[in-house]
Amino acid sequence: MEKIQKMLEELSNLKTDMHNKDFLLTWQKTDAEILATLKTAETLKALYESNVSTKVFETGLAVSQFRDNSTRTRFSFTSACNMLGLAVQDLDEGKSQIAHGETVRETSNMISFLTEVVGIRDDMYLGAGHTYMKEVAASLDDGHKEGVLHQRPTVVNLQCDVDHPTQSMADLAHLKNVFGSIENLRGKKIAMTWAYSPSYGKPLSVPQGIIGLMTRFGMDVTLAYPEGYSLINDVVDTAQTNANKSGGKFQVVNSMEDAFRGADIVYPKSWAPFHVMQRRTELLRSRDNDGLKTLEKECLANNAKYKNWECTEEKMKLTKNGKALYMHCLPADISGVSCKEGEVAASVFDRYRIQTYHEAGYKPFAIAAMILLGRFKEPAQVLERLLASNRKRVGA
Amino acid sequence: MEKIQKMLEELSNLKTDMHNKDFLLTWQKTDAEILATLKTAETLKALYESNVSTKVFETGLAVSQFRDNSTRTRFSFTSACNMLGLAVQDLDEGKSQIAHGETVRETSNMISFLTEVVGIRDDMYLGAGHTYMKEVAASLDDGHKEGVLHQRPTVVNLQCDVDHPTQSMADLAHLKNVFGSIENLRGKKIAMTWAYSPSYGKPLSVPQGIIGLMTRFGMDVTLAYPEGYSLINDVVDTAQTNANKSGGKFQVVNSMEDAFRGADIVYPKSWAPFHVMQRRTELLRSRDNDGLKTLEKECLANNAKYKNWECTEEKMKLTKNGKALYMHCLPADISGVSCKEGEVAASVFDRYRIQTYHEAGYKPFAIAAMILLGRFKEPAQVLERLLASNRKRVGA
Amino acid sequence: MEKIQKMLEELSNLKTDMHNKDFLLTWQKTDAEILATLKTAETLKALYESNVSTKVFETGLAVSQFRDNSTRTRFSFTSACNMLGLAVQDLDEGKSQIAHGETVRETSNMISFLTEVVGIRDDMYLGAGHTYMKEVAASLDDGHKEGVLHQRPTVVNLQCDVDHPTQSMADLAHLKNVFGSIENLRGKKIAMTWAYSPSYGKPLSVPQGIIGLMTRFGMDVTLAYPEGYSLINDVVDTAQTNANKSGGKFQVVNSMEDAFRGADIVYPKSWAPFHVMQRRTELLRSRDNDGLKTLEKECLANNAKYKNWECTEEKMKLTKNGKALYMHCLPADISGVSCKEGEVAASVFDRYRIQTYHEAGYKPFAIAAMILLGRFKEPAQVLERLLASNRKRVGA
Repeated sequence: MEKIQKMLEELSNLKTDMHNKDFLLTWQKTDAEILATLKTAETLKALYESNVSTKVFETGLAVSQFRDNSTRTRFSFTSACNMLGLAVQDLDEGKSQIAHGETVRETSNMISFLTEVVGIRDDMYLGAGHTYMKEVAASLDDGHKEGVLHQRPTVVNLQCDVDHPTQSMADLAHLKNVFGSIENLRGKKIAMTWAYSPSYGKPLSVPQGIIGLMTRFGMDVTLAYPEGYSLINDVVDTAQTNANKSGGKFQVVNSMEDAFRGADIVYPKSWAPFHVMQRRTELLRSRDNDGLKTLEKECLANNAKYKNWECTEEKMKLTKNGKALYMHCLPADISGVSCKEGEVAASVFDRYRIQTYHEAGYKPFAIAAMILLGRFKEPAQVLERLLASNRKRVGA
Repeated sequence: MEKIQKMLEELSNLKTDMHNKDFLLTWQKTDAEILATLKTAETLKALYESNVSTKVFETGLAVSQFRDNSTRTRFSFTSACNMLGLAVQDLDEGKSQIAHGETVRETSNMISFLTEVVGIRDDMYLGAGHTYMKEVAASLDDGHKEGVLHQRPTVVNLQCDVDHPTQSMADLAHLKNVFGSIENLRGKKIAMTWAYSPSYGKPLSVPQGIIGLMTRFGMDVTLAYPEGYSLINDVVDTAQTNANKSGGKFQVVNSMEDAFRGADIVYPKSWAPFHVMQRRTELLRSRDNDGLKTLEKECLANNAKYKNWECTEEKMKLTKNGKALYMHCLPADISGVSCKEGEVAASVFDRYRIQTYHEAGYKPFAIAAMILLGRFKEPAQVLERLLASNRKRVGA
Repeated sequence: MEKIQKMLEELSNLKTDMHNKDFLLTWQKTDAEILATLKTAETLKALYESNVSTKVFETGLAVSQFRDNSTRTRFSFTSACNMLGLAVQDLDEGKSQIAHGETVRETSNMISFLTEVVGIRDDMYLGAGHTYMKEVAASLDDGHKEGVLHQRPTVVNLQCDVDHPTQSMADLAHLKNVFGSIENLRGKKIAMTWAYSPSYGKPLSVPQGIIGLMTRFGMDVTLAYPEGYSLINDVVDTAQTNANKSGGKFQVVNSMEDAFRGADIVYPKSWAPFHVMQRRTELLRSRDNDGLKTLEKECLANNAKYKNWECTEEKMKLTKNGKALYMHCLPADISGVSCKEGEVAASVFDRYRIQTYHEAGYKPFAIAAMILLGRFKEPAQVLERLLASNRKRVGA
């Protein structure tokens, strides 16, 4: 309990302006806000593990909108909402129907009369997901200003075309835990690298989220991919700017080995090239199924040139003392297990399997933190009241 | 808080007999019961906005059964249930399968062992929706009488072929708020008129709900539609009887202009003609897809003759001081926005957009009121206890 | 309240070891554990009916995974979880996709960070359902041991290929209530018999569950089926062993009349022969649709030879004083009502209809008991605290 008390003191010392705001991209948040989110997540986790109820809402709705299949993120979001006392109601428009304009404005209000948070996953179309979330946010602003909505629900990005902040914040929490502190991450080398996968069309949001966030704390971030597998330019620029500001490093290389050499952390994960995602977006929009098949074929053939981009035992030996921390957002394409040839050798994955589970385990708490900070002006006080009331989570 | 205290006094002065009853059609309820529902909805809204918890159930289930797609009503129902402490569980039979007899009796009991409310939307088939709800209600009566069900769940009509009471009650709450009181509605002219839409098969329940409810408070209700677009006869008769009793007026005209002239309120909304809905019901039942296509074609062609039934700026000028209140259950077919030509001109809709959102905002509270009155013998006392306990809804 | 106090004393006298364990097969539980489950279910029912809140979790998730359609079991599970304070989140993999190995291990952990119970229904494939549940359980053990999961969720079998413990425990609760005590069941004859149905592919888990559980309390259990409709051998052996141990009887006959003769209880219900389910499992796995059609045709033709296996008034006259208790897990195939010729004559069913509803009404409480015993080391103390706090379930 003293540990939690200390966390709360640290939290209340951070100057943040997150109340009635959304959590869409980590680089729209100040360092203090990122640290406050992390601290809040850790506090909620500590309260949970101490069997203290974290229910700050007696009643209230959480809206989830998944424009792509999801199991892990769905459960993380539901867990986060439940932990705070909110009930989740799915908004299911059907995957193919992408609403715009008047409909978004109206629907956003209609689902929000008693709603505290709207969680959205929309990562299929380049240029669409983040735009859609901003449209929802503007509609909620409008409804709140006009008195239609008594409260302003917080929009939480559960993965868009640009960023995946609930993943990257969970990753940061994991790194902090493994290395002992945010300060200890300074100078540590993280290799965010493309890896081979026998599938295509994987979003760019994870690597973009990682380079956009990890460059802020003085880390040495290396992004590696085969020629042609570049990310959104703006995000790469953001990563560079962040690194300059934080005293870290950011570089792009075209060799997995170069990235791994001396790395403290490796994050090998497949994604589709930016230009492929652009073509795919157009083909999806024009419902050109033949075009999509041709693109998939081309893309898989291109991927196949880079089967050697696998996180093998040999490559792991290149890392710092051969013992870099392996990270993945899961599920990984494990060679010989979930596919013939994939992102990671089975023996490497197996050694770090439990660690990747721990990594994922931060996500519900990271999401809950985003909600809490978006909905409460004085989050540290709210958490202190929880601690003081000491109401049991389990056990009547 | 004094305001709420006053509301509760007014509520406890109304003599009602709603405990263990359902809310299926507004005209099955006495005036006092309608006013009690309205007062309870307003009280719940006031408590909500004062951050007082309205959780009257520690645990308990709410069953939702949507036999037609729905986003708005689904969220309103979920919000209402959540606000009272109930968890929603969907009963999803598949849209095509319409259960009867033994199956309804059995299923109604099987889903209700710990259930407090069953919300049903069934508006696709003329002659079916209301009948089905009565069948469910009778099954629950039976199960309760036989001791199978410890409590008698309340059935709430979330839209049937005959009435849409959660909509009309929200509309009444909105009117009361705009005009200051129920008494002030006396003599006010409301034009419930058909309007052109490029779609077909819209249910009759909204116009029927409006003429069935608004005739009870001395309003001057004009129903307008092109020849052939009549409603269910019984409901029209009910409206006339209500008007006679309440000292109001009820008339049917075949001109949108006539209806708009001097109106204080206009409610322009498309629906399918009664006889089309009857044919459609038969075709749906016999799964005659060709017949359905032919009917749709015929019906759209017929609609197209009445494209001038649009709520334009010009027609709005005919209303009282050119400033009638525009109402709609949403979503509206807005000309040039959601369709080429539709129910309402974009400039008219835009001027009233926020008001229609406020109108919709009463729905969760109207539904919660129906549940509360159905489940508690002394609803005013229950609400008083909520007020007295002053347990915060948000904020630990 | 004194009655409940007495139940709790009896419960605390039963030596059980169910904490952090699963409820997969009744025959994996000791007699004391079966009785404790029954007692806990009865206590929860009594608390519910006394309007005492049974909420032992402030927050927490319940995962439901239905690999087959279900309405009744779904509502029972949701009711059970809700009664204890848990929110249900569905894990929906799609019916065709049966995950194995790495995926099961990973998914089981990913959905369980804040989860207290995982309810699984998987009864389609012989040899698969129970195996899958054990795989999930082992994954949760692993995750808990490794510190990935703060708590060890309890797996509850909501019907597998081998057993249907939530059904058989509800049946036992019903029998205890009808006959006054478990002791009174000693020597009573129960006829678990096959009955004709115009459908095919019904699981074996209900008859297996009944013979596996009812043989434990000294009952005279007769299993009857036409030649060729045998059950899984291991379960039949278990029933025989149970009967020997408990001083009861177990016999298999091939005549419905023989089974009914002198029976105190009859449970006539259709199922598919074991060897048909095996062939069906193979055909489903190889997605051999033609083979499945052929099998269905063969199987229905074979069923049709045994249309006289119907629970008629005439057969009921063979039972003890012609008044045996009729039981069914519902829905029954009622001749002339839900099908032309079926498991039971309409007049017989109708006489026992309300009793079958009561039978089903125990299921939510039986499931809640399994959860409570799986999650709490001292369940009697938890229930005592609920009783002492006397927090109202309904009524603010």
